[in-house]
Amino acid sequence: MTEIASLGKFGLIEHLTNDLKIQNSSTIRAFGDDAAVLNHDGRTLISNRLFLEGIHFDLTYFALKFLGYKTTIACLSDIYAMNGQPKQLLVSIGISKRFSVEDIDELFMGVEYACERHGVDIVSVNTTASLTGLSLSLSSVGEVEKDSAVYRNTAKVTDLICISGDLGAAYMGLQLLEREKAVHTGEKDFTPDFAGKEYLLERQLKPEARKDILELLAKNNIRPTSMINIVDGLASELLHICKQSQVGCSIYEERIPIDYQTAMMAEQFNMNLSTVALNGGDDYELLFTVPLAMHEKIQSIEGVRLIGHLTSQDEGVNLIARDGTQISLQAQGWTATAENSNE
Amino acid sequence: MTEIASLGKFGLIEHLTNDLKIQNSSTIRAFGDDAAVLNHDGRTLISNRLFLEGIHFDLTYFALKFLGYKTTIACLSDIYAMNGQPKQLLVSIGISKRFSVEDIDELFMGVEYACERHGVDIVSVNTTASLTGLSLSLSSVGEVEKDSAVYRNTAKVTDLICISGDLGAAYMGLQLLEREKAVHTGEKDFTPDFAGKEYLLERQLKPEARKDILELLAKNNIRPTSMINIVDGLASELLHICKQSQVGCSIYEERIPIDYQTAMMAEQFNMNLSTVALNGGDDYELLFTVPLAMHEKIQSIEGVRLIGHLTSQDEGVNLIARDGTQISLQAQGWTATAENSNE
Repeated sequence: MTEIASLGKFGLIEHLTNDLKIQNSSTIRAFGDDAAVLNHDGRTLISNRLFLEGIHFDLTYFALKFLGYKTTIACLSDIYAMNGQPKQLLVSIGISKRFSVEDIDELFMGVEYACERHGVDIVSVNTTASLTGLSLSLSSVGEVEKDSAVYRNTAKVTDLICISGDLGAAYMGLQLLEREKAVHTGEKDFTPDFAGKEYLLERQLKPEARKDILELLAKNNIRPTSMINIVDGLASELLHICKQSQVGCSIYEERIPIDYQTAMMAEQFNMNLSTVALNGGDDYELLFTVPLAMHEKIQSIEGVRLIGHLTSQDEGVNLIARDGTQISLQAQGWTATAENSNE
Repeated sequence: MTEIASLGKFGLIEHLTNDLKIQNSSTIRAFGDDAAVLNHDGRTLISNRLFLEGIHFDLTYFALKFLGYKTTIACLSDIYAMNGQPKQLLVSIGISKRFSVEDIDELFMGVEYACERHGVDIVSVNTTASLTGLSLSLSSVGEVEKDSAVYRNTAKVTDLICISGDLGAAYMGLQLLEREKAVHTGEKDFTPDFAGKEYLLERQLKPEARKDILELLAKNNIRPTSMINIVDGLASELLHICKQSQVGCSIYEERIPIDYQTAMMAEQFNMNLSTVALNGGDDYELLFTVPLAMHEKIQSIEGVRLIGHLTSQDEGVNLIARDGTQISLQAQGWTATAENSNE
């Protein structure tokens, strides 16, 4: 184990960035200056996210490599949700004394791997001491053609509502990990049996950004009228689109795509499956709308599910349950985890 | 006092961003989407910084308004140090339970004020719960003409070394605040006597980014051959420029600009004044180099001091002391504050 103090701040940064390669021509200058220099055609997209230990991740069961991968994917998916291509990433890490150089290497390996898979250059790495655990601040930067960005406020009444992949699996993966943690408290290296639940764990620990869906849509000449990254759960994101586009919507409970493992696990935990799918979060799937005329075309796209349609704003944001009853969707409050705050 | 939970995450973000105005035409879309959309002429500059309570600031004596202002200035100064114009800022705030909506308003007021003064648009605001205090992640984005960015690795042997303003005052301001804190421990609202030390406090609590110096240089047709933001102290930044430009340097102790209050305070604290100026940090002044031929011209610029010159790399990075002895400058280690880490 190598103490971080033995390298010093700049030694650590050099150690992390030494072997990084630049692959995008839009990266004019990375590292070693006060700012990175970029040259984008069209428009520049930028998103910034902060991940804090104890709030966004629990290192009891979250390997640092996965954490680096997941937080990077979360950031890149913001760029995809604008219909853009992520090109650059800036990383700042707050590190408390309990972490070694090898720990940070592992974390960084995950960041690098995600970037490599998405053709993204890491252009800035900063580290700082931290009093209490690990903090990660990531900024993703992307490129989109002049008139190609897809916003949240451009959906139209009668548009169809689509989502990629399936929902709720990451949340059930989290419940599973939390249960195992509670059961095995005090054991040093517990190896719980996750057989048959691999998909849930993968969705929680190693989610993917849906670049493939954007490619499929482009190939089929489908341009979404609005789009958003599903981070806080379908309900929350739907409310964003409806509020900003000044529309209402009806989505159908029976059409929400849910994996078999998610359903099994929800039953085992005695949880309402639709609540899990609507509010679970951490899905990093795309929620988007397309014109009504795209009805047949969109149904032919693999990995995309049509779940409802937009209505006029005064009809509200509604879920049509399996029994036909209409339920109004509500925004969630301040992150539940905040309640654990020890101050 | 309004609890943050009463607004919820999105309510808080809306509350903070509601009245913000966009002033730059390069800001195509701010807020409310997965990413901000920007349109820069020439090149885009971007820098990301993470500020953590207990490491970068102590709220015992740091008013939140000042904190917002200072962290923003720190970020914008990165863009100036590339010879660019800051245009946009992205803000993510980690907030523990002990903070109210009014607290965050105060913090944000400082961010806004700094942005307003520098013509910068806040284009993204994110908040998250935090277990332990306040975390601030800021990304500053700027613009620079195609061939106008000034790097750290382009200084040439015989170039002159210049700095703006004076050094060490922010550090002495910090010492002063720390002493008062220690003296008044336990008192609720201590009001220490800072008469005659206002400059030190101002430099620590409300530093400025040297946009004015860049304007003066441009007006006088002086294009620095290299430039860096003085964040970690003159010695550290000089070492960066020398390492990256593969040069050495000689700077003269007697030429380092130091304010009278800084000198008085260092004597009172029995600290070596040159060490304070070389390693204090938090100055946010510009360190830059110009060709030897600029010798007279640069001396006519108010607020800029010529402190030495570059040499060949094998001569090393040296301070020529008042008595003529030559002292080799060393990089500092992992931030001292890290030693206080309670993990």
